[in-house]
Amino acid sequence: MEINEIARQVKEASIKMAAMSADLKNRALEQIAGSLIDRQSEIIKANDEDLNRSAKENLPEPLLKRLKFDETKIADVVDGINSLINLPDPVGKTLLATELDEGLELYKTTCPIGVIGVIFESRPDALVQISTLCLKSGNCVLLKGGSEAKETNRVLADIIIEATKEAGIPADWLKLLETRAEVDEMLKLDEHIDLIIPRGSNDFVRYIMDHSSIPVMGHADGICHCYVDEDADLEMAVRIVDDSKTQYVAVCNATETLLVHEKAAPGFLPLLKEALEKKDVAISGCPRTMEIIPVSLATEEDWGTEYLDYKLSIKIVKDIDEAINHINHYGSGHTDSVITGSKEKAARFMALVDSGNVFWNCSTRFSDGFRYGFGAEVGISTSKIHARGPVGLEGLVIYKYNLIGNGHIVAEYANRDKTFKHKKMNKEFPL
Amino acid sequence: MEINEIARQVKEASIKMAAMSADLKNRALEQIAGSLIDRQSEIIKANDEDLNRSAKENLPEPLLKRLKFDETKIADVVDGINSLINLPDPVGKTLLATELDEGLELYKTTCPIGVIGVIFESRPDALVQISTLCLKSGNCVLLKGGSEAKETNRVLADIIIEATKEAGIPADWLKLLETRAEVDEMLKLDEHIDLIIPRGSNDFVRYIMDHSSIPVMGHADGICHCYVDEDADLEMAVRIVDDSKTQYVAVCNATETLLVHEKAAPGFLPLLKEALEKKDVAISGCPRTMEIIPVSLATEEDWGTEYLDYKLSIKIVKDIDEAINHINHYGSGHTDSVITGSKEKAARFMALVDSGNVFWNCSTRFSDGFRYGFGAEVGISTSKIHARGPVGLEGLVIYKYNLIGNGHIVAEYANRDKTFKHKKMNKEFPL
Repeated sequence: MEINEIARQVKEASIKMAAMSADLKNRALEQIAGSLIDRQSEIIKANDEDLNRSAKENLPEPLLKRLKFDETKIADVVDGINSLINLPDPVGKTLLATELDEGLELYKTTCPIGVIGVIFESRPDALVQISTLCLKSGNCVLLKGGSEAKETNRVLADIIIEATKEAGIPADWLKLLETRAEVDEMLKLDEHIDLIIPRGSNDFVRYIMDHSSIPVMGHADGICHCYVDEDADLEMAVRIVDDSKTQYVAVCNATETLLVHEKAAPGFLPLLKEALEKKDVAISGCPRTMEIIPVSLATEEDWGTEYLDYKLSIKIVKDIDEAINHINHYGSGHTDSVITGSKEKAARFMALVDSGNVFWNCSTRFSDGFRYGFGAEVGISTSKIHARGPVGLEGLVIYKYNLIGNGHIVAEYANRDKTFKHKKMNKEFPL
Repeated sequence: MEINEIARQVKEASIKMAAMSADLKNRALEQIAGSLIDRQSEIIKANDEDLNRSAKENLPEPLLKRLKFDETKIADVVDGINSLINLPDPVGKTLLATELDEGLELYKTTCPIGVIGVIFESRPDALVQISTLCLKSGNCVLLKGGSEAKETNRVLADIIIEATKEAGIPADWLKLLETRAEVDEMLKLDEHIDLIIPRGSNDFVRYIMDHSSIPVMGHADGICHCYVDEDADLEMAVRIVDDSKTQYVAVCNATETLLVHEKAAPGFLPLLKEALEKKDVAISGCPRTMEIIPVSLATEEDWGTEYLDYKLSIKIVKDIDEAINHINHYGSGHTDSVITGSKEKAARFMALVDSGNVFWNCSTRFSDGFRYGFGAEVGISTSKIHARGPVGLEGLVIYKYNLIGNGHIVAEYANRDKTFKHKKMNKEFPL
């Protein structure tokens, strides 16, 4: 079938999907969780096929690791689904209720976005995670996974489609695409698809952003910073920079560049070097850093690089404003932390650093939907509209304005026969 | 100066702009209002030049009317600025406060989007309206007006720049572009510009959407519907359809297509025809409509046309579901109204019609920021992400996550030495 026709079917299903009750969606989520456990051996068999084929095709070791979908991973996604069931329904919440005039009431209520196109690389757990988040938020999905995971993805999509059909969810709410050519087609279907969510490497996300006429929610990279101010507690600063850099290096919220106030540098840098040496972190620094600790020279390119590795670049700055300017210039608007004992400086940093997550005296690694208590995460957005930072269910809904009248017409207000009251009401949408 | 360099300056100003206090922004708005009155004769002189030149160039009469910026229009924009001053500051509101753990507090606070690129046709009042909305919401702007209004726009931009500079707003917060070539350049500057707002004709907005790598907030058209159900009060239905169609035909929230339940049609259509004839509305209809009232035949093209004129197309449908499907297929997601005495059917219509504004028993002409009580309006968005329906100040802000710790690191939570509390706090961001 043509991708355009598939997308049209999903769009059509999205209308009915928007009206599904919270109970029905939760029952469908329970069915999926049950079915994932019931059909566990089938999933593992398909995943073995993918792993064997990919190993023969010399897929790099870290990617093979991400591709693996075993009993533990299945248990993890089932846990995820169970916590999703316990979250409140994000759809149908009344955000605003205003009496415009006698008998003329306006309600702003949340509703699903519609059709989400999700494109992800290797990890099959992303398929389950994102499609269940879409289901809970009443959205329909077009999914495209990596070809290396195609057998696993087929079984998972089949499980989800069957389980939700049984529960009474519209049959066409989820479709799996399998070829790269279909993705390029999909990026043009702005009539049927409302939002694209890409999950994968920077280059991959950037490619999607550059080739889509549909809005894209994704982060292109995570160049995060710590800034150690002159007023910092140096021991605390070592702890935080160490954790920000080394707690898990392969993720977008790990710190890549450290900025240090010139007055703090002589005392701080030797302490930090000692801590990072234990973890084999390769350090490069500006010429002034090199005068204090023996490190390689950081180039202009370093300031704009997401290492995702045991590497750190260091720059000494003359004050907090130079640090803020450096971050706004080279950073990616993801997560940046200031370590300082001064409340005024923290306030300045948090107000002027133009990132989705701005931290004071804690590790950049905290920027994450689960740690923030959102229960579930679609991804971390570095976009400046719609949703920013870790995106939970809330980022998958939008709103509509519902106006209830009793024969009200505008002519009477234009003529000044009647005037608006605009009175806030403490009331839920009654329909 | 290169447009790229201009945009870079505005981006730089946007950092300082984000930290401007509500008082300072309101003082700057007062300065603008005062200066518009003080320099009124200068504005009118420049506008006369534009009007004379455009008349010689045979600009059509309706566009000349929109171009005119006289004392009344100046008084209107000054009124607008004064009501904007009275609105609460949309920046720095705490949307969420969570205690993640002892001493580790997360605050989600509103902040400006950053740099907004505004492109508008003829009306000079749009320049004042949009730039003052951007100022109030802490955003910086790149403005491009129509060439027919270039003298007026120059004076207005100069007034705004001078007035805000005096008040202490960063000098580069607003820049006026003057050539069409600059617009095409601007649409590529996704590094410096965060959002594009186009105001003008459908073709114009569509062109911007198709040529921008920056997110665009705008509505491409307004194909609005009324659906008269079998349970409708026919007298009320005539009133509402008449107002929806004729109260002001040249606007996006005027109704273009009427759908009528087959059981209501024989009684309703003759009444409606009588009312619309008085206003010289040209009616076209489906073959079944033609059996009841003498009208021309509506073509497939009619269902997808925004007339913006005294024209109405009518289709008879067999039930509410056919009406809903028609609207979701041919409509533009703008505003649609159901006229029915049945609460169940109204609920069905409002849940299943996928538009930003869904109405029950009132005129489509109500979908408007001022009528909704938003005080000011950037435009009406038919997009499905970020902001939908009439967009006020709220649509010009986004949020950031502020996390305050005391040396907190992720390793301790990953090791399970510590666990998250995720306790909601009823508290404002303290910095």
